[in-house]
Amino acid sequence: MRLIVVGGVAAGMSAAARARRLDESAEIIVLERGPHVSFANCGLPYFVGGEIPNESDLLVQTPQSLQQSLNLDVRVNHEVTAVDTAAKVITVNGYSLKYDALVLAPGATAVRPPIPGLDLPHVHTLRSVGDAVEVASVAKQPGNAVILGAGFIGVEAAEALAFRGWNVSIVELAEHVLPPVEREIASIATRELERLGIHVIAGVGASEVSATQVLLTDGRQLDADLIILSAGVRPDTEIFADAGIETKNGAIVIDRHGRTSAPHVWAAGDAAVLHDMNRPVALAGPANRGGRYIADDIFTPELARKFPTPLGTAIVRIGKLTVAMTGANRAALAGRTYHTIHLHPTQHAGYFPGAQAMSLLVHYGVDGTVMGAQAAGTDGVDKRIDVLATAIRAGMTVDDLIDLDLSYAPPYGSAKDAINMAGMIGQNVLDGEIRLWYASDLPWAQENALIIDVRSEAEFASGHLPGALCVPHTQIRARLDQITAAADGRPIRLICKSGMRSYLAYRILAQQGIDVATFSGGMTTLADTLGPTLVVEKGM
Amino acid sequence: MRLIVVGGVAAGMSAAARARRLDESAEIIVLERGPHVSFANCGLPYFVGGEIPNESDLLVQTPQSLQQSLNLDVRVNHEVTAVDTAAKVITVNGYSLKYDALVLAPGATAVRPPIPGLDLPHVHTLRSVGDAVEVASVAKQPGNAVILGAGFIGVEAAEALAFRGWNVSIVELAEHVLPPVEREIASIATRELERLGIHVIAGVGASEVSATQVLLTDGRQLDADLIILSAGVRPDTEIFADAGIETKNGAIVIDRHGRTSAPHVWAAGDAAVLHDMNRPVALAGPANRGGRYIADDIFTPELARKFPTPLGTAIVRIGKLTVAMTGANRAALAGRTYHTIHLHPTQHAGYFPGAQAMSLLVHYGVDGTVMGAQAAGTDGVDKRIDVLATAIRAGMTVDDLIDLDLSYAPPYGSAKDAINMAGMIGQNVLDGEIRLWYASDLPWAQENALIIDVRSEAEFASGHLPGALCVPHTQIRARLDQITAAADGRPIRLICKSGMRSYLAYRILAQQGIDVATFSGGMTTLADTLGPTLVVEKGM
Repeated sequence: MRLIVVGGVAAGMSAAARARRLDESAEIIVLERGPHVSFANCGLPYFVGGEIPNESDLLVQTPQSLQQSLNLDVRVNHEVTAVDTAAKVITVNGYSLKYDALVLAPGATAVRPPIPGLDLPHVHTLRSVGDAVEVASVAKQPGNAVILGAGFIGVEAAEALAFRGWNVSIVELAEHVLPPVEREIASIATRELERLGIHVIAGVGASEVSATQVLLTDGRQLDADLIILSAGVRPDTEIFADAGIETKNGAIVIDRHGRTSAPHVWAAGDAAVLHDMNRPVALAGPANRGGRYIADDIFTPELARKFPTPLGTAIVRIGKLTVAMTGANRAALAGRTYHTIHLHPTQHAGYFPGAQAMSLLVHYGVDGTVMGAQAAGTDGVDKRIDVLATAIRAGMTVDDLIDLDLSYAPPYGSAKDAINMAGMIGQNVLDGEIRLWYASDLPWAQENALIIDVRSEAEFASGHLPGALCVPHTQIRARLDQITAAADGRPIRLICKSGMRSYLAYRILAQQGIDVATFSGGMTTLADTLGPTLVVEKGM
Repeated sequence: MRLIVVGGVAAGMSAAARARRLDESAEIIVLERGPHVSFANCGLPYFVGGEIPNESDLLVQTPQSLQQSLNLDVRVNHEVTAVDTAAKVITVNGYSLKYDALVLAPGATAVRPPIPGLDLPHVHTLRSVGDAVEVASVAKQPGNAVILGAGFIGVEAAEALAFRGWNVSIVELAEHVLPPVEREIASIATRELERLGIHVIAGVGASEVSATQVLLTDGRQLDADLIILSAGVRPDTEIFADAGIETKNGAIVIDRHGRTSAPHVWAAGDAAVLHDMNRPVALAGPANRGGRYIADDIFTPELARKFPTPLGTAIVRIGKLTVAMTGANRAALAGRTYHTIHLHPTQHAGYFPGAQAMSLLVHYGVDGTVMGAQAAGTDGVDKRIDVLATAIRAGMTVDDLIDLDLSYAPPYGSAKDAINMAGMIGQNVLDGEIRLWYASDLPWAQENALIIDVRSEAEFASGHLPGALCVPHTQIRARLDQITAAADGRPIRLICKSGMRSYLAYRILAQQGIDVATFSGGMTTLADTLGPTLVVEKGM
């Protein structure tokens, strides 16, 4: 039995290692085009920034260590150039190898948009150890850097170069940084990037790159001694498509056992797409899992588990901030009916030192099923997103979130944890005990409703929506007549700082039979959604 | 409609607040025996330690603030002395009040074991703001403190006084601190307590308390200027039992809607026990949820959700360490068949600065269902326990843990997160791809098996099991003949530092048809289980 694995990083190496553990007698050959296998690809930006000090730290395994521990025949600098699936033969570095089973994990390469000048020597990608070593070497002498593309890697690269003292601009064609993240969360990321001194330019592309500058589509010119291209990746699958293996949008199509259209050929990782999805999910976790499950399907098919649908859980550190997401975002939910709630819970008990509010949003279906969640904050964000990723995988509803018994002591959480709170708000919406309004309703509300800001008079005076009436939530009952008179038959739209006090006011007014709604996430979410364009009056 | 709530902290105040939000017109009276409502009972040890600086920080709400925001009639220093469930009348501070609905949330009081001297003035409990203020005042002048009882509160109190410069002894009748936590996790807590300078005495009780000393059952005497009694709590329910409301082990019996045996009477919190459980779970999260669900059952019964079975998730900070648990422990699983796995994953990518191993154990059933988990470590423990608490609530199996898409970037986790790794090990056990042995098997193994330590020769020389043979895992294949000769027909039992390398060695030897097993959690877990009594040889 000879297993050949093409690609020696996440999916490929997981498949090879699991294969060896399952079958001591198999011949297992790993062919890696680059000079390194099993390297820390997610660590590259931190090597550039200097947090990971040594190149050797990035090399988790070597061909020698894999030979010794797992008896793998790892061949680096080996590029597969042809596959004959009928004869079960591949061509690599000019010679032929027969296989009994073939696992394709070639990964992805950087997307190179058709922008003149991208082949100049100061334009780098950050995909390999070699890339990182080159960029880190350049990075030692600060200058002007331009990052093209503000996805997760681009943001990490911007942070790394800012740490090194560079003057960094990050350019994103989409309307905000971290395009998969919703606007009201991404704006928090933008603020933190700017706090780090990074110049954020969104909604604009690069039109040309010269030896010293980047020209933008809006005519602006950015000085650039170093350019990092991080405009996304695409599967690296051309020769496999040429071999007749089915692909979709450039990715190798696989079933839930990782099997391709060709017999005896499996695929996983950034280059593979599940037959019922549209594009690959280029993340390390699903890649490693895919590799494992493929080895199971080859050696112990009776025990092999099916690939789950990846949730796309992702996280990024930006300075003191953490931004994370899991499951579906609005773009993925387009055309479906769903609810979105926003909240700003603290990471631990409010009375314990260091309590800081995070921003959390949850999308869920009309039957309550949690579908996606995103958060930004300085502490505890990864925990909440991981709990929600688990809840989504389990098919939990928002009601189920109330029933989670999460660890609570004052340094870690609250008796009603952020997740429980999200469940309670979600349940209130489903049960009709609360009705929410959003930034998109603001023009209508300003035209047709009475907006009541239920914060304290001091908070109101520090900045509020034009035309809003200030009635602190503790005065709602006593001032009901005044409120009804001011509304004069119009609906009432409530807002406070984060949505808690306006919920209390909502319950009072709704029980009076008034057409009322409370702003999801309060002024905090409103400002994060509309950004600096929000017109806010000051004073009473 | 008049709702009377007895007890104004977690469950009671949650019920009252939710009730008001559901019904603006109800009359809601909260009767609290003590001088404070809705105070931060879990924050008391941190006030004693000085981390929470002001008494006012502990008072989350006041009767006035609750009147203003929720129109609640909160009466502190009001003690209910009788209940007539037939007439629907209670007696409080000598007067009578009729109710339409009654919610009992009287909480629990400190267990006072029959030890002479516990009524001396330097013996304190830590249950109320008044307790905490008194202890904090005494704590300003360091001296000798003895903590009686090393449960979660006792450990927090010990830490707090150690921070204040006290010479602290903590005495626990059970065989180790944090009795609900397994021995191999509790020993890590003990080490951290000792690192903080706290004197840990387990398996011993107090027999008498004098003005200056605590006499232990083993004859030892401890100097004590201050004694904290933290020997557990018991429900405070005598008058309700006298009123004919059904109790069990002193707790008010409730159904899954919080209903007691008496009509129109509900109960929740530390004083209530679900009819199909044996004792209350005295935790803030379930108490708050219970209060909410009771208000739902009173005002919107068609929407009311059933109380879930509490998982007993708990967490404690000790110095730099976090210890947490969720679900069933060995005691709760007694008589059932289940597996236990141990692992020592890092909280984030091993190559990222600051990576530190935690200790994680998972109990799961023979069908794979996750039943309980515990962990100790300096970082990331709360996240993993919360994910596992969610998985347990969802009824997930260990296989399902592999499929969780948890947030990964090098500062936060690993491509194969600790939870995924637990799933893989659990699955390997179920599928027969690994067979584990434990500390309890050590005497048998030392008698009947060849123990092979597969760590490096340098690690082996630093300390190993007597009689163990050192064969680094990378040499297993080459030295198979030597190993079989040394075994001479005996079974082989493998061990390494944490269980990873011995798993690789296991796969090689098992495929040779050898009777072999690998130690769950390696030398780390073995030492944590057996403690300082483990006899370890040094040198090759």
